[in-house]
Amino acid sequence: MAPALAAAGGAGGHDIAQFLLTIAAILVAAKLFGEAAERIGQPAVLGELLAGVVLGSSALGVIPATGVSADIITVLAELGVLVLLLEIGLETDLREMRKVGGSAVSVAMVGVVLPFLAGYLFWLNVPHGMGDPNALSTAAVFIGAALTATSVGITARVLSDLSNLGSVEGRIIIGAAVIDDVLGLVILTVVSGIAAGGALSPYSVARILAVAVGFLVVAIAIGGWVAPRLFRSIANMKVSYAVPVIALALAFGLAAVADMAGSALIMGAFAAGIILARTEQYHAIEDRVRPVGALLTPIFFVSVGSSLDINLLNPLRPGGGFLLLVALGLTVLAILGKVAAGYAAPWSKFRRLAVGVGMVPRGEVGLIFADVGRRSGLLTDDVFSVVLLMVMGTTFVAPPLLKILFRGQSADVGAEHVL
Amino acid sequence: MAPALAAAGGAGGHDIAQFLLTIAAILVAAKLFGEAAERIGQPAVLGELLAGVVLGSSALGVIPATGVSADIITVLAELGVLVLLLEIGLETDLREMRKVGGSAVSVAMVGVVLPFLAGYLFWLNVPHGMGDPNALSTAAVFIGAALTATSVGITARVLSDLSNLGSVEGRIIIGAAVIDDVLGLVILTVVSGIAAGGALSPYSVARILAVAVGFLVVAIAIGGWVAPRLFRSIANMKVSYAVPVIALALAFGLAAVADMAGSALIMGAFAAGIILARTEQYHAIEDRVRPVGALLTPIFFVSVGSSLDINLLNPLRPGGGFLLLVALGLTVLAILGKVAAGYAAPWSKFRRLAVGVGMVPRGEVGLIFADVGRRSGLLTDDVFSVVLLMVMGTTFVAPPLLKILFRGQSADVGAEHVL
Repeated sequence: MAPALAAAGGAGGHDIAQFLLTIAAILVAAKLFGEAAERIGQPAVLGELLAGVVLGSSALGVIPATGVSADIITVLAELGVLVLLLEIGLETDLREMRKVGGSAVSVAMVGVVLPFLAGYLFWLNVPHGMGDPNALSTAAVFIGAALTATSVGITARVLSDLSNLGSVEGRIIIGAAVIDDVLGLVILTVVSGIAAGGALSPYSVARILAVAVGFLVVAIAIGGWVAPRLFRSIANMKVSYAVPVIALALAFGLAAVADMAGSALIMGAFAAGIILARTEQYHAIEDRVRPVGALLTPIFFVSVGSSLDINLLNPLRPGGGFLLLVALGLTVLAILGKVAAGYAAPWSKFRRLAVGVGMVPRGEVGLIFADVGRRSGLLTDDVFSVVLLMVMGTTFVAPPLLKILFRGQSADVGAEHVL
Repeated sequence: MAPALAAAGGAGGHDIAQFLLTIAAILVAAKLFGEAAERIGQPAVLGELLAGVVLGSSALGVIPATGVSADIITVLAELGVLVLLLEIGLETDLREMRKVGGSAVSVAMVGVVLPFLAGYLFWLNVPHGMGDPNALSTAAVFIGAALTATSVGITARVLSDLSNLGSVEGRIIIGAAVIDDVLGLVILTVVSGIAAGGALSPYSVARILAVAVGFLVVAIAIGGWVAPRLFRSIANMKVSYAVPVIALALAFGLAAVADMAGSALIMGAFAAGIILARTEQYHAIEDRVRPVGALLTPIFFVSVGSSLDINLLNPLRPGGGFLLLVALGLTVLAILGKVAAGYAAPWSKFRRLAVGVGMVPRGEVGLIFADVGRRSGLLTDDVFSVVLLMVMGTTFVAPPLLKILFRGQSADVGAEHVL
């Protein structure tokens, strides 16, 4: 049978043995580095990100940056994020979420406006060699945009590790991060429009916003009515594992629909989780989806970590010291901007520093902003690397800070840590 | 976050939304067709194979035959087989296996020699248009070789569905199928050598055989000593899901090592299962690996089903009737050859028809033999389609027959059917 697989894999010019070794290395490194992180009192996800840096193409080179294997790892990582968001959705109580809705919206809005302004103004005032003031201002818009992102994945994972997803702060952070995704969609479209040199009407911006919000509302409204009835029938099926497998199919399917409707992939998976949380089979789904997530989500975090080029951290390369300084400045602004957002919604009562810090990691979203900028030629390699350093800095700094801020406060009941 | 994914997926020219819809369709169809099969008293895997035919490129066209999405589905299917073989290995008691070792070897040997001769002689004596006697004899060797294969995946899944993996017959079938993989490696190499026009020495044939057998012995010997100690430490790790995730990494890693050592991928995954069966964490591993298998293995079976071109079944296309007849004859020989193998090892006592039928499905292994022949130009499209029909015929006929033969006899204790 195995030559079958080898041949089938080889058909696409793809070395399946090499690929399997890479996946095995990713999984083992994720667990070893995660364990090391926990042993020194840090969240496991920090270890997984570091495992990615070590296995990445700029260090050990175990994880390829391009090629078929890289594409497949990217897809597995994407499936990992979708399963993660499905799990987060499953743990999200919509009524509890509504209670913090106003705070979440305020935190998200301030967390977009402040970092954008900070990044934009910082970039206009940093001394650099570029002569063209027009290019400078375009780059500044890009830098500002990259600072607005929030990676819900990183923070949710940290809060989940600390059994704090259900706390008031946890709910505000997740809510604000989801809203941030909606705003992120709008910003990315505007910025891509600038990159393409085109003009964007306020009408089309409003349309993107309406679609993103509309998708969530419609999906949850329809799904929340259909799913409990549908899954009652599925639970009566004789074939094994019908409930969790069809639940995963729903998450992947809704993600696709969200994407095609002009919203975001993870919105679909998140909506699927919220919908499934209302079914009677909720516990069975969570129980059987979790091992799948345990396999796939480390691939995502390791993959994010592997995109850091460690050569950027070398202050001795030509111009390296100055770049590091600029990156440091931008990282500080990125952190302060989101921390300040925690102080939005003055009418509401929550631990503001914890919420602010929870919004700090830019993760893979920041990477994409940077990537769009580089590919369109609006960001030079040096500017790109500065953005990359800011993204990685915020991503690595948040987990240990959250750990300190949430220490000793465990709000979730029944959170399990297995094996 | 989602634009991140969309952009990352789009980077490789790959439509992630389309891909997710395909995966969702595969999963839902697998469960619906599996349920329908069970309702009419057939094993679920038969439904999954049929779901593949319906979703395949010759029918609905939901599953693409080529392109990046097809490559990724192939890899997910491969991971599915590996997880399946890991599960089979976990359920394999080596001492019980040794008791049936002699029978398994005899069944495997007879099940290779008889079908080969039957296929070879059949092909030489079928009237066909090809004039070159040399090409005819080479094609006959290929046809014979394609008839030797056994798909352990299909049968193991049926036996597992029927809670009969642990019966004497179940153990002989799995043992013989694994030995068949060793022999299959040798045959594929010899046949590929013929296809490439080169000569193969008896020495190199013996070397392939020694490597394949040697890998299993060495891996199980070393792993059986190291794994229980290693996994005792892993079970003490604080990070969650370390045991099952590292177990999966071991299966993928050993599969890669097996392949690189010149053995077969699934041998590595099977060896990993046998090794892990000796650890104290055996139950936890099985419990957490199963949901992962429940997600991935249907992708494998649907993928196998999708390779059938239903146009081949049309007797009204030019020459279609004759081809169907030839294919029917070959299928009958393929079935009889393996059924006869069940009557090997006269000193041993077991239900011979059940074992013979268990060896019938050629599954994906047969497909690969056919594929190697077609790509090397030794098989014309018509001959290729005859082999394909034989492969599909044996694959579809075995599950219902096994169901009848094993009905009412449930030998496994504690086999679970969940949800």
